[in-house]
Amino acid sequence: MSASSPSFPANSAPAAVSWQGEEKGLLQLLDQTLLPAEMRLIDCDTVEKVWEAIKMLRVRGAPAIGIAAAYGVVVSQRSRADREAAQSATKYLATSRPTAVNLFWALKRMQAILDGNQDQATLTAELLAEARAIHAEDREMCHAIGRNGADLIDNHSTLVTHCNAGGLATAEYGTALSVIFTCQDQGKQIEVFADETRPLWQGSRLTAWELQQRNIPVTVICDSMAAHVMQTRKVDAVIVGADRITARGDAANKIGTYSLAVNAKHHGIPFYVAAPSSTFDLDLVDGKDIPIEQRNASEVVAPYDTTLAPADVSVYNPAFDVTPAELITALVTEKGVVQQPTEEKVRAHLA
Amino acid sequence: MSASSPSFPANSAPAAVSWQGEEKGLLQLLDQTLLPAEMRLIDCDTVEKVWEAIKMLRVRGAPAIGIAAAYGVVVSQRSRADREAAQSATKYLATSRPTAVNLFWALKRMQAILDGNQDQATLTAELLAEARAIHAEDREMCHAIGRNGADLIDNHSTLVTHCNAGGLATAEYGTALSVIFTCQDQGKQIEVFADETRPLWQGSRLTAWELQQRNIPVTVICDSMAAHVMQTRKVDAVIVGADRITARGDAANKIGTYSLAVNAKHHGIPFYVAAPSSTFDLDLVDGKDIPIEQRNASEVVAPYDTTLAPADVSVYNPAFDVTPAELITALVTEKGVVQQPTEEKVRAHLA
Repeated sequence: MSASSPSFPANSAPAAVSWQGEEKGLLQLLDQTLLPAEMRLIDCDTVEKVWEAIKMLRVRGAPAIGIAAAYGVVVSQRSRADREAAQSATKYLATSRPTAVNLFWALKRMQAILDGNQDQATLTAELLAEARAIHAEDREMCHAIGRNGADLIDNHSTLVTHCNAGGLATAEYGTALSVIFTCQDQGKQIEVFADETRPLWQGSRLTAWELQQRNIPVTVICDSMAAHVMQTRKVDAVIVGADRITARGDAANKIGTYSLAVNAKHHGIPFYVAAPSSTFDLDLVDGKDIPIEQRNASEVVAPYDTTLAPADVSVYNPAFDVTPAELITALVTEKGVVQQPTEEKVRAHLA
Repeated sequence: MSASSPSFPANSAPAAVSWQGEEKGLLQLLDQTLLPAEMRLIDCDTVEKVWEAIKMLRVRGAPAIGIAAAYGVVVSQRSRADREAAQSATKYLATSRPTAVNLFWALKRMQAILDGNQDQATLTAELLAEARAIHAEDREMCHAIGRNGADLIDNHSTLVTHCNAGGLATAEYGTALSVIFTCQDQGKQIEVFADETRPLWQGSRLTAWELQQRNIPVTVICDSMAAHVMQTRKVDAVIVGADRITARGDAANKIGTYSLAVNAKHHGIPFYVAAPSSTFDLDLVDGKDIPIEQRNASEVVAPYDTTLAPADVSVYNPAFDVTPAELITALVTEKGVVQQPTEEKVRAHLA
C-alpha cells in the first residue's frame, strides 16, 4: 500500500463498489488497476468518472460493472437533478464496455424507473433505491451461487481458476470464488492454482490477493502453464465466472477461458461456470453472436511502460473468448446448477 | 537500440553466437534479454561469463546453447591453456541448464577431443575446430530442417508459433522459423501468430522481431489467445522447436507448448515440431522422465520490477513442458520428416 493511500485494517480490504451518502452522495470505487501494490479509493462524483472507471477496468467483473453503472445513473442526479440527465447518463454508461451483459441488464432496470411518472424528488430517491436493490440482490446471489457450487466440490480439492471472479468483481464473495469461499466456510480444504490472466493480470493481482486474505493456499501460474499442471498434478475441477451466457449455455468470459476449457476436456477435468442469472442473454443462442471487445495493443506489448515487442508490431487483443456449452460440465447460478447445459435446460432453469 | 550500443545496419542484426579471433579469441553473444529494445553484444572471455549467459537466457534456444557451451570450453583455454582447465569448464558448463539436451550433446563432443592424447597446442586448436564444426553443422542442419518442413506448409498458410525457434536460437535461420523463412525463400506467402510466451516473452520480443526483419506478417498474441484464434480464424498449422525429444517422440519445449498442442488437436490443426537430430535423447523413452527446469518466481510475478501479485505468494514456474508424441503430427529434422512419431519410427529415422 502506498503512503498516500488511506490505510485499512489488515485483512480488511474496502469493497470494490460502495455508495457514500444518500441521494446527493457519490460512488466510491476501489481502483483495481493498482492492486495489490496500492489500495486507492476513487470518488466518482460525475458520470464521466464512472464511465472512465468501467472503461479502464478500475472496476471490473460483470456483476460489479452492473452495480457501478446503476449507481452511475444516480450520480447524474448530483449536478443536475432531472430526468433528462439520468436518461443521457444511462445511454452514455452503456457505451463503456460491450461484452458484459450485466451492464445492460442493470441499466435496463434503471431505465424502467426512469420510465415512470414520478416527481423529481421521488425519481431521485427511487433511482438510488433501485441501485441499492441491484447491489443487495447481487450480494445475495453471490452467496447463493457459492452454496450451489460448493455442493459440486469435494473436500481436499485442487482447483484452477482464471481471471478474477471474486468479491472484487461483485458486491461481495464473487461467483467462482464464492464457491471456494463457501467451501472454506463449510470447513473444506481447497487449494487453488490461479492463472495470472494476461494481459491485465487480474489472476495474480486480484484473485491471488483475495485468496491470500482468506488464507486459502494459492499458487500463481502463467496462463500457458495450466495444461502442464493438469497433466502432471491432480486437478479436480476448473471454475470460472462469465460475462455473458447465451440461451444454449455458451459462455463469454475473460480471454483464456476457452483454452482452459479445451484443456480441461482433454484431461477429463470438470469445467464449471459460476454466474448470476443476470449474466444470461436469452436473446442470443449461439456464442458466436456475442460481441467481443477488442482492446488496445499496449496492454499486450507495453504494460507498465516496458517494451515487450518491436515497435509497430501487429497485436490482436480480444478481451474475451467464448466457451461453447459442450465444454461446460455445469453452469452454477443463484437458482441452482444446470448440468451439461442445453438451450432447453437453460430456458427451464431461468423460467 | 540504446545510444550506448554498437550500431548495426538496418535489418542486419548480429548473430546470436559468434567467435572472435583464433585459439585465444573470445565468444561474443547477443544479449537476448535486452531485445528488441536494445542490441548489446557481450564479450565472454571467461567460462563464468559463458555460464552466466546461458543460465540467464542471454543466449537461449537449445541449438544456440550447445554452440555457446562448445565455445565456452575453448574460452577456458584463454586464461590457462591446459587440459584440466578444459575438463573442469566442460563439467561446469553442463550445470547451467538441465533440460536442453543439445548442451550435453555439444559438451560430449568437446569431451571426446579432451579424451585424446594431443599436446597442448594441438588440443587447443582441435577444441576450437570442434566448436566451429558444431557451429557450422548447426547452420547446415537449420537449412535442411527448413527445406524438409517447408514441404509440409502450403502457400497462403497461417501458422501459430510459440517461444523463439529462430536464428536467435541457432547458428542461423532456426528450426521452426527456418521452415517459415524457407517458405518465404520459395515464394510462399505465410502469416504468423506469435505467442508472446510468458514468462520471458521470447515470442513477442524475439520471434516477432525476427519475422518483422524479414517482412513476414506477424501478429503478437498472449499465449491464452491461441485457442480463440484457432476457434475463430483459419489456422493451418502450429510449428514449434524442441529442447529435448525422447525415443518415442515426446517433446520437451518451452512451457505453453503442451497447451498449444492440446488445442491444435481439439481444432484438428496439424502440430509440427522442428529440431535437429542432436535434440533427441534416445536414452529416454517416456517424456515424463525429462527433467524440467524450475525457475525463479520473480520471472512470473515481478518482471521488469513490477508488482504483479501480492508479496510472498506461491508461484510455480516450470521452464518447459512435455508434449506427448500422440499430439505431434510430425517431427521435422535435418534428416527428413517423421509422421505420427513412434519409437520404432524415431529410432529408424536417426539410425
